[in-house]
Amino acid sequence: MNKRIRLGMVGGGQGGFIGAVHRIAARLDDRYELVAGSFSSNPERGDASAAELHVAPERSYANFTEMAEKEAAREDSIEAVSIVTPNHLHYEPTLAFLKAGIHVICDKPVTTTLAEAKALQKAIADSGRLFVLTHNYTGYPMVRQMRAMVQDGLLGKLRHVHVEYAQDWLSQAVEKQGAKGAEWRTDPARAGSGGAIGDIGTHAYNIATFVTGETPSSLLADLSSFVEGRVLDDSANILLRYENGAKGMLWASQVAVGNENHLALRIYGDKGGLEWNHERVNELRYTSYGKPMQTLTRNGSGALAASTRVSRVPSGHPEGYLEGFATIYREAANAIIAARTGAYPDAAVIYPSIKDGIEGLAFIEAAIRSSRNGAVWTEIER
Amino acid sequence: MNKRIRLGMVGGGQGGFIGAVHRIAARLDDRYELVAGSFSSNPERGDASAAELHVAPERSYANFTEMAEKEAAREDSIEAVSIVTPNHLHYEPTLAFLKAGIHVICDKPVTTTLAEAKALQKAIADSGRLFVLTHNYTGYPMVRQMRAMVQDGLLGKLRHVHVEYAQDWLSQAVEKQGAKGAEWRTDPARAGSGGAIGDIGTHAYNIATFVTGETPSSLLADLSSFVEGRVLDDSANILLRYENGAKGMLWASQVAVGNENHLALRIYGDKGGLEWNHERVNELRYTSYGKPMQTLTRNGSGALAASTRVSRVPSGHPEGYLEGFATIYREAANAIIAARTGAYPDAAVIYPSIKDGIEGLAFIEAAIRSSRNGAVWTEIER
Amino acid sequence: MNKRIRLGMVGGGQGGFIGAVHRIAARLDDRYELVAGSFSSNPERGDASAAELHVAPERSYANFTEMAEKEAAREDSIEAVSIVTPNHLHYEPTLAFLKAGIHVICDKPVTTTLAEAKALQKAIADSGRLFVLTHNYTGYPMVRQMRAMVQDGLLGKLRHVHVEYAQDWLSQAVEKQGAKGAEWRTDPARAGSGGAIGDIGTHAYNIATFVTGETPSSLLADLSSFVEGRVLDDSANILLRYENGAKGMLWASQVAVGNENHLALRIYGDKGGLEWNHERVNELRYTSYGKPMQTLTRNGSGALAASTRVSRVPSGHPEGYLEGFATIYREAANAIIAARTGAYPDAAVIYPSIKDGIEGLAFIEAAIRSSRNGAVWTEIER
Amino acid sequence: MNKRIRLGMVGGGQGGFIGAVHRIAARLDDRYELVAGSFSSNPERGDASAAELHVAPERSYANFTEMAEKEAAREDSIEAVSIVTPNHLHYEPTLAFLKAGIHVICDKPVTTTLAEAKALQKAIADSGRLFVLTHNYTGYPMVRQMRAMVQDGLLGKLRHVHVEYAQDWLSQAVEKQGAKGAEWRTDPARAGSGGAIGDIGTHAYNIATFVTGETPSSLLADLSSFVEGRVLDDSANILLRYENGAKGMLWASQVAVGNENHLALRIYGDKGGLEWNHERVNELRYTSYGKPMQTLTRNGSGALAASTRVSRVPSGHPEGYLEGFATIYREAANAIIAARTGAYPDAAVIYPSIKDGIEGLAFIEAAIRSSRNGAVWTEIER
Repeated sequence: MNKRIRLGMVGGGQGGFIGAVHRIAARLDDRYELVAGSFSSNPERGDASAAELHVAPERSYANFTEMAEKEAAREDSIEAVSIVTPNHLHYEPTLAFLKAGIHVICDKPVTTTLAEAKALQKAIADSGRLFVLTHNYTGYPMVRQMRAMVQDGLLGKLRHVHVEYAQDWLSQAVEKQGAKGAEWRTDPARAGSGGAIGDIGTHAYNIATFVTGETPSSLLADLSSFVEGRVLDDSANILLRYENGAKGMLWASQVAVGNENHLALRIYGDKGGLEWNHERVNELRYTSYGKPMQTLTRNGSGALAASTRVSRVPSGHPEGYLEGFATIYREAANAIIAARTGAYPDAAVIYPSIKDGIEGLAFIEAAIRSSRNGAVWTEIER
Repeated sequence: MNKRIRLGMVGGGQGGFIGAVHRIAARLDDRYELVAGSFSSNPERGDASAAELHVAPERSYANFTEMAEKEAAREDSIEAVSIVTPNHLHYEPTLAFLKAGIHVICDKPVTTTLAEAKALQKAIADSGRLFVLTHNYTGYPMVRQMRAMVQDGLLGKLRHVHVEYAQDWLSQAVEKQGAKGAEWRTDPARAGSGGAIGDIGTHAYNIATFVTGETPSSLLADLSSFVEGRVLDDSANILLRYENGAKGMLWASQVAVGNENHLALRIYGDKGGLEWNHERVNELRYTSYGKPMQTLTRNGSGALAASTRVSRVPSGHPEGYLEGFATIYREAANAIIAARTGAYPDAAVIYPSIKDGIEGLAFIEAAIRSSRNGAVWTEIER
Repeated sequence: MNKRIRLGMVGGGQGGFIGAVHRIAARLDDRYELVAGSFSSNPERGDASAAELHVAPERSYANFTEMAEKEAAREDSIEAVSIVTPNHLHYEPTLAFLKAGIHVICDKPVTTTLAEAKALQKAIADSGRLFVLTHNYTGYPMVRQMRAMVQDGLLGKLRHVHVEYAQDWLSQAVEKQGAKGAEWRTDPARAGSGGAIGDIGTHAYNIATFVTGETPSSLLADLSSFVEGRVLDDSANILLRYENGAKGMLWASQVAVGNENHLALRIYGDKGGLEWNHERVNELRYTSYGKPMQTLTRNGSGALAASTRVSRVPSGHPEGYLEGFATIYREAANAIIAARTGAYPDAAVIYPSIKDGIEGLAFIEAAIRSSRNGAVWTEIER
Repeated sequence: MNKRIRLGMVGGGQGGFIGAVHRIAARLDDRYELVAGSFSSNPERGDASAAELHVAPERSYANFTEMAEKEAAREDSIEAVSIVTPNHLHYEPTLAFLKAGIHVICDKPVTTTLAEAKALQKAIADSGRLFVLTHNYTGYPMVRQMRAMVQDGLLGKLRHVHVEYAQDWLSQAVEKQGAKGAEWRTDPARAGSGGAIGDIGTHAYNIATFVTGETPSSLLADLSSFVEGRVLDDSANILLRYENGAKGMLWASQVAVGNENHLALRIYGDKGGLEWNHERVNELRYTSYGKPMQTLTRNGSGALAASTRVSRVPSGHPEGYLEGFATIYREAANAIIAARTGAYPDAAVIYPSIKDGIEGLAFIEAAIRSSRNGAVWTEIER
């Protein structure tokens, strides 16, 4: 009765990083069973991957089209599929599986253009299937905690939103030296028109949006390609303006030497302030105006239900990246189970959806437009 | 060919914490498949747990004796079993499964007395089966890194070993207020003769031993039971002396208000110093005498093979408790696979064994003996 | 022969904060002797202050005009004067003392308009006297260290400049509740046209300029007055562009709840990165591309002469705000001693001058101009 | 009327470190005027030092005996003297100045033996003069804050006292390589019978005693001399037992590579816990049982009068070592002023006295006795 969800995967063959992460995320809470896949555009590599992953040979498909069709025809069809291909290969497979009546869990960004994302939104609505976008950082318990604290009014009226995501692995032209992942991320044909802004800027933007519950109405973006010969941006300095008067700063860089994977969010309202960063992922600093700063911890004193329900081990025992990612899968499972009976999932269940995907692409496109026009104020068109 | 290892479990029924951790750890790297269990002394709860865990009803056993016998008789018998019962229920099941020719993965401490641990050592040798003790903190990549750095001579001749493990969840008599886990841990009949020293002191001792590669010859322990009515120690102040002249201090406390799960190791030799703590589990501070302090990170620059081979995600993406625990299971899997053909596992494979279990009990018993005699210097008898 | 420098002070009477800071700074290294002053516009309070400060009654003056005249006429005239009045009262006294042949040490910002600052520059040149602006954060040893490291090329070609100065003491309308210092700082008549941007934004801008050795050519500023009824800005989100292609982000806020006095600078070039913040004022994090992050400490291993020569106690013994401020006075003393003989001070001597004052006002005025025009790119006119 | 206190100094000639620190400390709050001294056993160096320090030639004395006599005879005699010579030269000068009716401010440890300290106690009582011991770390605002919080009962009944003071500058035999300060500190003839334990262990012990208000009744000390050829201890592992049932651990080391000047205190009672360390000297971490950890800051929210009255700059502006040292001088000045009229100083005034000196030597002697007897429990005889 409490059967695992049968899951397929597109992409994620041998040697890839993000596919392995999705699989661990799916496995961690034991809610899924990987039973089918089209793991690689290279059929041999695809089959070898399937064998390694305990997927039956007959369910190792040459391409996603065949997979969607054949799976849909099986009685024990997959119920959901994870799409973990590079950015430009999200759109078509998603359409195919939705049409086949299969829920889709898709890596971010959802597509390479806003127009595609909107087309997808329509297709999702028409299909009646679930679409889950793995903006994994929203799965961190302390990020959930921040969101709940904002919703509870602990910060009052928002004034400042500061978010940054800095890395240093693209500080040199490693894409020309065969670096894994750097090649397609710096190639407009495969990554889309955004470089750092698409790869990590969207994460920063998404987490700020998720926590504050607000989306900016306009932005001003000064994108740079510091490394010689690089076409796409490798960093972005961005100002944000919100309807309600709050203002923001967003920084994304993949050339900030000394930053391995620095994601940080700080928000301040007239009643309080919150600070969180990836280096201390299980903690949160909260100051109520005029009182001493508190350090709130995952599952510690002061933890709200919104964070404890997505936490697995007691306070003081660190959780990390894989657990946060797994929470997206866990929430997706909750929603899929509910969908079996046509029910809505429990109100507490939260997962990033096509709405987040559209918001992310609206952000990327507005930023690129702003920067190309000389870094001017630009409306975020959704 | 690359089949998952068939795993059974003793203990870990609904509501328990550590059983769930073992299962996630076994699942994370997809090397095991849970197919049998005796999950609870209460048969109904055991069967309900089995159902939840996708274990076939006929392989949900009423007790470990039946389980060992019946599994041994199956063609698709479990190859390994996880024993996750309270301390006093490790010894008998371990013996039973070894006799049945099944590898054992056992929660720590291995037994409640040194004598039992020694008896087990003999039984293990006789059985030719593997015995893996889940001293999970040795699975952290940065703990592996420290060990490798010591072995590489970066610290020179060791002088100071400082290790501490502090919590605060037993600051009051929560064992009388129905607190999960507090009851049996403070009960000599179930926990053995050590309280904090057995529960967390052994972890501290084990990590120091693992990293330094040295075991102290004698210790002096001043144990306390600060909370009124508590029989077992809830904290321990300990001095250590090593053969090679190094000296140590070990502190374990479950009544140190403000410490959620503070495990920290600092070691200093004549050439360098290393500092690590649980709050920043993915980092390590290393100082070579006369040079600036370096922060080494998991998978970052300066990471040695000893740590990268047990790491799953890139630097800057936090790993945590579950990943460390999973590494013990991954290493056990490596050893089990090798054992299928009678081969030794790769030299890089490391897992805590009965030797660590004996060392831990020798430590506990010496500490209790020392404290009862007025906190005097006491040889650690192994 | 090694006589203390005779010093006067304008402003800084009883109850003021910054005057007391200047006096401690002057005293710390025993290079000055306070012998005259016009401490308050209220003569009684001025005389009472003089008495407390061991200043002879006949050298307690009613106003700076009288003070400049009478001191100039004495054989034991003051050699230098500290001007510690609110911003709008810097210009006239400075002119008066320069004319009287007396060196001037002046609190920042130098004036309330760029035009005045430029007029002052001419007057300084004409007078042949020294003018020292107390941009005290440039006195911190680790800030000097960063500057020297940039000059030594350790960062390579600069890409990112991130500087921020956040406080929270103006989060509410405390200027209407009698808060010390808040009244004049939020009053355009006394503070000038900049609020947070003048009070702390200039510090942030100055430290970035000091360390990088670069000044931006243009900026874009989005200033806000979040607190109802406040006329001047209480926060500023600013983008910077440098001639050499580097780009920057500057944030100043006095309404960021939880920030007591957070000043932080991070700079990244193609070879390395540096991070420093006020909370750990005696440390610096330095990463050379591809190597582990190092923590450099004041007077510790790796400290350059540029920082050790302005440090007073061994590494590990914290220095702070007053020591940094005192270094400005120490450097001024070095320059004044050299000036006695018409010599240039030693090349190592560094102090903020009218050039920094002009740069600061150019920054403030450009920021206000930019913001008023809708937060558009604006040339910094000097 | 508010005249500065006339101060003399014994020791502290050119090139010395601690003498300069005492002078800055005396100067910082402008309560003293240095007017006499016997700065060096070498008369020429003494006179040169005097000239540099603006001390009149006739008040530069060849030795402390002459100084005490001649100063006592002057109408404008010094009112207090600072004794900053090596440890073995504290006793005789103190006696001489007390006899001359002059208050004494003396560097720690007060003497090299407990017997001398007790003799001094009698002499002080007989003299009616003040004796201030510069245990400077008790001058830190956050240390004062901790003490007040303990007194206010916020920690409840004390259980754990953990204090440590670790340095690394004696990790090698630098005393044989001409290192300043290392020579006399490692020489029993000049330092007394304690090495690290006397130099820094007493600071650790003193701060723990100051904060908790409790002195241990017994200790057990395992001293080591890790560096070859070193006679005195360079590190000490110590257990403490208090009358009231609390227990402690004290670690002092001058060979812990990577520790520049790490002083840390952690105390835990049944109601709360406090943690403080030198690296973040302006902060304090406080946890009330069951509540989130708070970070209390100097002059920040939650700061008690006990800390704000010895603080000079607003919260967020770091104070450091010199300020803490200056507070000892400020408190001494308060006491000296009160003594002029025979009054007691205000109840809030706190300074370390001969009682602290005796306690410190009782600690050192008990520790050495314990260690020599094989590291056994030893009563602290006072």
